[in-house]
Amino acid sequence: MAHPIIFDTDPGVDDAQAIAIALAHPDIDLLGMTTTFGNVNITTATHNALLLAELADRQIPVAQGAAAPLVKPRHPAPTHIHGDNGLGNIALPEVQGRADPRSAAQFIVDTVNARPGEVSLVAVGPLGNLAAALQLDPALIDKVKQVIVMGGSIREGGNVTPVAEANIFNDPHAAARVLTAGWPLVMVGLDVTHRCVLGPDQMARIEAGQGRLGQVLAGSYAFYRDFYQQMLDIDGCCPHDSCALAWLVRPELFTTQRGHLGVATLGLAEGQTLFAPQGRGFIEERWSRTPLADVCLGVDGDAVVEWITDTLA
Amino acid sequence: MAHPIIFDTDPGVDDAQAIAIALAHPDIDLLGMTTTFGNVNITTATHNALLLAELADRQIPVAQGAAAPLVKPRHPAPTHIHGDNGLGNIALPEVQGRADPRSAAQFIVDTVNARPGEVSLVAVGPLGNLAAALQLDPALIDKVKQVIVMGGSIREGGNVTPVAEANIFNDPHAAARVLTAGWPLVMVGLDVTHRCVLGPDQMARIEAGQGRLGQVLAGSYAFYRDFYQQMLDIDGCCPHDSCALAWLVRPELFTTQRGHLGVATLGLAEGQTLFAPQGRGFIEERWSRTPLADVCLGVDGDAVVEWITDTLA
Ligand SMILES: [Ca+2]
Ligand SMILES: [Ca+2]
Repeated sequence: MAHPIIFDTDPGVDDAQAIAIALAHPDIDLLGMTTTFGNVNITTATHNALLLAELADRQIPVAQGAAAPLVKPRHPAPTHIHGDNGLGNIALPEVQGRADPRSAAQFIVDTVNARPGEVSLVAVGPLGNLAAALQLDPALIDKVKQVIVMGGSIREGGNVTPVAEANIFNDPHAAARVLTAGWPLVMVGLDVTHRCVLGPDQMARIEAGQGRLGQVLAGSYAFYRDFYQQMLDIDGCCPHDSCALAWLVRPELFTTQRGHLGVATLGLAEGQTLFAPQGRGFIEERWSRTPLADVCLGVDGDAVVEWITDTLA
Repeated sequence: MAHPIIFDTDPGVDDAQAIAIALAHPDIDLLGMTTTFGNVNITTATHNALLLAELADRQIPVAQGAAAPLVKPRHPAPTHIHGDNGLGNIALPEVQGRADPRSAAQFIVDTVNARPGEVSLVAVGPLGNLAAALQLDPALIDKVKQVIVMGGSIREGGNVTPVAEANIFNDPHAAARVLTAGWPLVMVGLDVTHRCVLGPDQMARIEAGQGRLGQVLAGSYAFYRDFYQQMLDIDGCCPHDSCALAWLVRPELFTTQRGHLGVATLGLAEGQTLFAPQGRGFIEERWSRTPLADVCLGVDGDAVVEWITDTLA
């Protein structure tokens, strides 16, 4: 049976690939997308979510959400990574459809409450929409099936600061709320996404397999790949957001550890995720007081990339 | 020619072994020890520094320093790791000598100014004495030969919190001052000390080679080893503080990277060291504004342990 999910996203090049997977994979039932600022501004995020579904000839509800962080000022979007339009500055067709009239948070609340215990939230951008949904309905923690978060880093170091991953840095207060809410949660962070590198040959197979959508995925990938080549000296891209869906469908490709998560919200370490393994003692209790969650610390990176490619080729 | 050093210490089981090395190694000229709270309270630290030198039949100046952190309240000493007396609760002989009348900070200032450009500061406890010395004489940064700090963790995670190493956590404000002062500095942190494990056979050789001092080193080691066995499931101990002296005498056993250090002083990440590699761009400039320092990220752990054992056997 397919997993019913809501995909919370800031598309974004790697988001676009993950959206294609969510649309294509027979084991995923995409109930809707909710959008947030992050890789792009909120208007662009909503536009791109609508467009990507239309390119796959699908009608998927898209509900617009957070335009800015909960507490701190918004940082400008990283146009050097995702392009001004979030999809590597390639030319894009017109969008036909319109966003759902509800806020992202209300869409999440309504959709989860309609199918208690069944819906997985897959969040691959800053976490403001999930925090806002918890503000509307704190009992969501007992009604979602699970929450899968692409974000954070435990041992891998950060990608936007020496210690912080971008999604968490972009709204650390929302991340603190979401990662410590006490719902069934798994964190898919840089510790595993950096072990997955999708190369140009694999992208060529994806382009060939995805029609009009494939052209957008491949065109935006080329732009994103330049960034990886310059910054990290990798020929290929880390498919961060697709890894969250790999965990949904193929969790056996990952190794996880259970423990307590926390998020630094201020100072030099702002946006860092902290992980206290279950049962490990520290000098004070404060790191071990949050509810338990699962954190991905290991992965068969080649198998994940193969799964992504096979899904889309 | 031997390296003239001041050894700043909170002895402490692993400090005791490092002090034995500083006393024994022909390439090290131990000009004095300065003491700080940390593994033990300040009175015990000074007592143990005096005692360890006397057990080796040496007269070494010992100047007492920080009894508490610069800013935050003091955390109780970790008696479960080092014992109430800092040396695994073994019976200890009486101390004959007395501490230097000067403060640790004044001793550092006087000693460095007497031999400008020659003296290395090797600091293996919380960094309050070095911060206080900089307060007395900010020009010290141009007069020390180098500063070697055992403390911090970049990729290894923490030992007293999920992200913080004990020496830095015990006085993060002092650490922020010292690690960003702009003097020639190398950080020898958990990234390398956790790669070094000194086992019981090696300790037996040290005990045999060090006379009365060897009995104290071996007796305290047995207590410390219990802690490692219970907490980390290692048969042996990480000789943290000795690694700083290994770097002084045998730097070729380590690999270092140059970059900008910072210390989180508040929130969940309090006491964490942050490292921005030189030339690596982040989302803002603030992580790359501090002076450059060297950070040990790799080590030949077996060779370091062999060097320690050979020095003392
Ligand atoms: Ca994303
Ligand atoms: Ca020490």
